[in-house]
Amino acid sequence: MPASPIRKLMPYANAAKAAGKHVFHLNIGQPDLPTPQHALDTLKQTKIETLAYSPSEGYASYREALAGYYATCDIQVNAEDILITTGGSEGINFAMMSCLDAGDGVIIPEPFYANYRGFSQAAGVIVQPITASIETGFALPPIAAFEEAIQENTKAILICNPSNPTGYLYSEEELLQLKEIVLKHDLYLIVDEVYREFTYDGKKHTSVLSLDGLEQHVIVIDSISKRYSACGARIGAMVTRNTEVRHAALKFAQARLSPPSLAQILGESLVSTPPSYLEDAITEYDKRRKLTVKRLQAMDGVTCPTPGGAFYVLVELPVDSTEKFCQWLLEEYDRDGKTLMMAPGSGFYSTPKIGDRQARIAYVLNEDDLNAAMDCLEAALKAYQSS
Amino acid sequence: MPASPIRKLMPYANAAKAAGKHVFHLNIGQPDLPTPQHALDTLKQTKIETLAYSPSEGYASYREALAGYYATCDIQVNAEDILITTGGSEGINFAMMSCLDAGDGVIIPEPFYANYRGFSQAAGVIVQPITASIETGFALPPIAAFEEAIQENTKAILICNPSNPTGYLYSEEELLQLKEIVLKHDLYLIVDEVYREFTYDGKKHTSVLSLDGLEQHVIVIDSISKRYSACGARIGAMVTRNTEVRHAALKFAQARLSPPSLAQILGESLVSTPPSYLEDAITEYDKRRKLTVKRLQAMDGVTCPTPGGAFYVLVELPVDSTEKFCQWLLEEYDRDGKTLMMAPGSGFYSTPKIGDRQARIAYVLNEDDLNAAMDCLEAALKAYQSS
Repeated sequence: MPASPIRKLMPYANAAKAAGKHVFHLNIGQPDLPTPQHALDTLKQTKIETLAYSPSEGYASYREALAGYYATCDIQVNAEDILITTGGSEGINFAMMSCLDAGDGVIIPEPFYANYRGFSQAAGVIVQPITASIETGFALPPIAAFEEAIQENTKAILICNPSNPTGYLYSEEELLQLKEIVLKHDLYLIVDEVYREFTYDGKKHTSVLSLDGLEQHVIVIDSISKRYSACGARIGAMVTRNTEVRHAALKFAQARLSPPSLAQILGESLVSTPPSYLEDAITEYDKRRKLTVKRLQAMDGVTCPTPGGAFYVLVELPVDSTEKFCQWLLEEYDRDGKTLMMAPGSGFYSTPKIGDRQARIAYVLNEDDLNAAMDCLEAALKAYQSS
Repeated sequence: MPASPIRKLMPYANAAKAAGKHVFHLNIGQPDLPTPQHALDTLKQTKIETLAYSPSEGYASYREALAGYYATCDIQVNAEDILITTGGSEGINFAMMSCLDAGDGVIIPEPFYANYRGFSQAAGVIVQPITASIETGFALPPIAAFEEAIQENTKAILICNPSNPTGYLYSEEELLQLKEIVLKHDLYLIVDEVYREFTYDGKKHTSVLSLDGLEQHVIVIDSISKRYSACGARIGAMVTRNTEVRHAALKFAQARLSPPSLAQILGESLVSTPPSYLEDAITEYDKRRKLTVKRLQAMDGVTCPTPGGAFYVLVELPVDSTEKFCQWLLEEYDRDGKTLMMAPGSGFYSTPKIGDRQARIAYVLNEDDLNAAMDCLEAALKAYQSS
């Protein structure tokens, strides 16, 4: 695996910090909001004598509780349909390995979450990208693009909804279009829904698990990382009603023995987090989103679609290469001792060059810091263009 | 992946329990000893606001602490040589993926830990078994056997020391023999040392990390699961001085983002567990080992080598198929409402038939329960032979 553009920036970020610069980290989806304290307290109050393996598929009580959570999202699944994974990452890995053999192809609309490529490579699976365009705000590419991309070895379509890195929220209509393709070509539909709750402007998330007729096709990846600001727990889930896929995944789960026990206790308690926690989180992210988009859209030469979900925007900047610009920001630039770090767009594309002028911004800082980071970016763009 | 013989027994074990039988679980290496409470307390006292990702390679403070632990085992490594993994399982996975490409071969003396096969398959790596024999107590096969097994695609040798499933403790002489082969054929030597501390009869464990001249060849897999009865933590490590292997492994580590944060806090605190904890654990396991071996060696037709380490014995039973016998024990047999579960030997062999009459017994129960389980087994063998 080649190093991702964002990893290549790490040494420059470290050097910038060592030189005393303050770096605004807009490069990673690590929320700054607190993890619900009641769940951390539950873990502390849990009497543990021997920290034993959990079942490979996860604790039964946690899977039952999760089925209850899904019911509140209009998703009717049983505990048996849920496999607890070590983060959403392992869920993606299991889904790839269970649905596809080496040499099979998976269609992924690009830009896509960079690690999808890593997991594809590890599974020997070939990514067959189709390109979503910044002009349409990264909407689902037209059906014709899918039809064109489908080859004999194509076995699955993978999307992230709402999307990392674009923040695009797929509409029910778009998902119904996907459904048609999936049924016509008998494909698996793997959907990463870890940002399910984070939708804005009154838009509602539609889970592919709630679409009739796709029961044997749909595999959903989930995680507590973003929902409850608990990225370090490493607890996710793979949810499917397809027993064959589930049995295949269970074998991979058995090979790694079990998901983390401590974090499952946390996860089970998180299911009963009061709704106000997520309402507050969404209100907070929405404020940041509006601020970020407003600031970016006011900058000369910047293209910034308005995202409908998650906590990212993927923007086009008036520079030739955001890889170089992001490095320059860390290496050579500062404004009153401050600079910012973003994720270069090239890392989110399978096709070369398309993402070269784009960068992903995660609005995971408070409004004051976001404003300061946007001040930095605005001044930096001017300085960079005149340099 | 085909279901392992032990997984095939699970429904029978569940049915036996549902029917009210007490099942002695000698089938899994889940220690019953308590996890050091001081470390669980440290975790409880740790103030966590946002449970964030750790670095992909693990917390720096934990890696530093681990380097200190290794120094106490006569292993001189730096924190940089250590990659924290999600259990020893992920360490094996990373080592396979980092050292071998699809189609490469790895020599593993059989019987071997069943999940090595699963990870090999997932990596597209071909297991090239050489057979250790119960007659020699599962000692290292002669060098000639290695030379014969090595093919053009052979890139690595993998052993577990002390061994799961045999309990065999490799001597320094045997490791030096391995060293010669490794250097002669320029192979990687991957050693699973998760049972490092569990050695008996005054024998001492030799880590391959302490052998001169193998710095670029050795990858050690480690875990806190067995050492501290913390299987559910899912914290292990991959340790190597080979920077190329480490950089490759780091990319896989980055794809899964980070190892569990909560359990790393536990792991770091476990490093300062007083030596008496492990001394007591070893004393306890040694008593159980002696009891188990004595009881087994006294049974008609049973072959039971005396293991030098870990907490397993692999025995040969006077039955045609331990798969069938183990199923019968759960399905049809009981002695005063009690029966036992063992791991059929076939699961630990790549070569068909050799393990058919063998079974692995994990002596992870207290002496009273072990004695009762051995009473069961002794009576069951007689009943089975006359049935």
